[in-house]
Amino acid sequence: MPDSDAVPTALPSHHPLVDGRTVGAPLIRAARGQSVPYTPVWFMRQAGRSLPEYRKVREGTTMLESCFNTDLVTEITLQPVRRHGVDAAIFFSDIVVPIKAIGVGVEIVSGVGPVIAEPFRTAADVDRLRDITPDDVATVIAAIAAIVEELGSTPLIGFVGAPFTLASYLVEGGPSRDHIHTKALMMSDPQTWNLLLSRLAVICGDFLRMQVQAGASAIQLFDSWVGALSAKSYQRSVMAHSAAVMAAVADTGVPRIHFGVGTGELLGLMHQVGADVVGVDFRLSLQEAQRRVGVDTPLQGNLDPAALFAPLPVLDSAVRDVLIDAQDLAGHIFNLGHGVPADANPDVITHVVDFVHARTSVR
Amino acid sequence: MPDSDAVPTALPSHHPLVDGRTVGAPLIRAARGQSVPYTPVWFMRQAGRSLPEYRKVREGTTMLESCFNTDLVTEITLQPVRRHGVDAAIFFSDIVVPIKAIGVGVEIVSGVGPVIAEPFRTAADVDRLRDITPDDVATVIAAIAAIVEELGSTPLIGFVGAPFTLASYLVEGGPSRDHIHTKALMMSDPQTWNLLLSRLAVICGDFLRMQVQAGASAIQLFDSWVGALSAKSYQRSVMAHSAAVMAAVADTGVPRIHFGVGTGELLGLMHQVGADVVGVDFRLSLQEAQRRVGVDTPLQGNLDPAALFAPLPVLDSAVRDVLIDAQDLAGHIFNLGHGVPADANPDVITHVVDFVHARTSVR
Repeated sequence: MPDSDAVPTALPSHHPLVDGRTVGAPLIRAARGQSVPYTPVWFMRQAGRSLPEYRKVREGTTMLESCFNTDLVTEITLQPVRRHGVDAAIFFSDIVVPIKAIGVGVEIVSGVGPVIAEPFRTAADVDRLRDITPDDVATVIAAIAAIVEELGSTPLIGFVGAPFTLASYLVEGGPSRDHIHTKALMMSDPQTWNLLLSRLAVICGDFLRMQVQAGASAIQLFDSWVGALSAKSYQRSVMAHSAAVMAAVADTGVPRIHFGVGTGELLGLMHQVGADVVGVDFRLSLQEAQRRVGVDTPLQGNLDPAALFAPLPVLDSAVRDVLIDAQDLAGHIFNLGHGVPADANPDVITHVVDFVHARTSVR
Repeated sequence: MPDSDAVPTALPSHHPLVDGRTVGAPLIRAARGQSVPYTPVWFMRQAGRSLPEYRKVREGTTMLESCFNTDLVTEITLQPVRRHGVDAAIFFSDIVVPIKAIGVGVEIVSGVGPVIAEPFRTAADVDRLRDITPDDVATVIAAIAAIVEELGSTPLIGFVGAPFTLASYLVEGGPSRDHIHTKALMMSDPQTWNLLLSRLAVICGDFLRMQVQAGASAIQLFDSWVGALSAKSYQRSVMAHSAAVMAAVADTGVPRIHFGVGTGELLGLMHQVGADVVGVDFRLSLQEAQRRVGVDTPLQGNLDPAALFAPLPVLDSAVRDVLIDAQDLAGHIFNLGHGVPADANPDVITHVVDFVHARTSVR
């Protein structure tokens, strides 16, 4: 467990973990396995479509334009903190932002997701991935500085997609249920596969490091689609590349969270890539996840988003079940087991924050 | 384990398991944990889009029209047996056929899947589900009789969708990635939920029993989407209804296979609903599945369909890994860990059948 009082030398002196603004935040403390005054809460996709104020500011701007607009990223990232009183902001972005930033043709099509103009299939395609520079994401990094300034003692979580998930978008050309061609490339041509994932790991790692240097106090590595793999495939073809992304910020001492959907079979390995906190989806209990990950590792999760659509007493009971399940963990960050659904009621989300805080407060 | 030599009294005398045609078939023997001359092979979705002869006969006929056309069901079911030499036919149909048969407004939209005209949300909607009668599916059952006649000693596998998966289509109104509204109904209104699933279980059980009486020598209960649930939710809200479907054919003695995608956390419970054979997806090894299900239970699976797109040596090695993994099972039916992808090469599928037969033949 990292020593929270040690000053990470790899961070600038005005970083909120160095100047002390966020070092005592419940989210940071829970991620480090330290005692907390109450269980910290945030929600995947909290900055987004479920909020009317989000839909309003997004009017007339495409998703990817928004992700590169300093004012919009700042505003959208802060909206759920203001409204819900969550214990962390999550940097508003999209998994494809770093590859868009280096010039790969990608658009986010409403109702579909990211669509790649020319899908990747061969070793030659890998050459289309150049290094990412601070200039490529200057507007994004400027937003992080502005957000951190506004947030004060509330930590900002930086984020990138993991190499497997990005590779799946690049190879399939868009979202996929089965990731067949991605996995076929992985099996058929390990050399091209490793080249592709290594390039993506460098790009994602560099982008993540820029976020941390600009003020993110924690990070989440999202491997959205990696649950499509067996443990054996993950171990052989993916794990080292995720570890490379995590390693890019290891010397900064920021807590690193790792999450993917349907990753019950992979949790132990996902911890080993360098995750300080493992995110758990709603398919398995936190106690079962703890058995797979190890008792010393804080966990994040794992309310089923469907519970947000149930009457309050049913929702409360489901939240209570998660909290009871979390009692013996080394640390617990409350979250959903998946992103906030677009049609969730924002008042219900706020209610969950209040409920978790009230139920877990040390008096 | 059922005694294969006992004559099931619940079957007509001309049934292939009673008159002896299929009782020695490797698929039936493997499903019963008996010795086999070679590992039997079939493929989920073997009757379908991957075959040019399928695409030809389907021209100008919608999916659901085809499912109710005796000649088309017969022809399409037999095509993969002729072409690949698989060890079983799987009745060509769709999960929504029984609800279409009782008059629920549903169409299968190309590239989307089943779309329900008026989604189910309340207790009143459950009244739209009446009992299924032999007249509702007369053309379908006629096809089964014709198929079984053609198949001789090759068993026909009957199939229905499980109540949860059907309920998800009815509640969401179509395919869904998250099944949010289905799960919200399950949590919010257990009474309506149980009413809905009980009705579906009766319909599916009756339809399955008709298939068996008409000559199916084994059945598979597909719970395609149930992997979206935690073990706790499955146990509380779904399991009893799947068990009711299985119970509808228990007295016939036909082997009952049970499969769902991403069901690693549920395998033990899915066995307990009355499955003689548990189907395993590609996310976990057969050996790990055996630990969860129990050593006495034959397993079906579990080649990753992505391997069908790899060069032959890579494919062969992946098939070999599955066979090695299956060595200590009580019984093994080779299959994919998911359906045949639409763009799979039929020659590759045939190669897999030959490879499995050759590698596992007792000389």
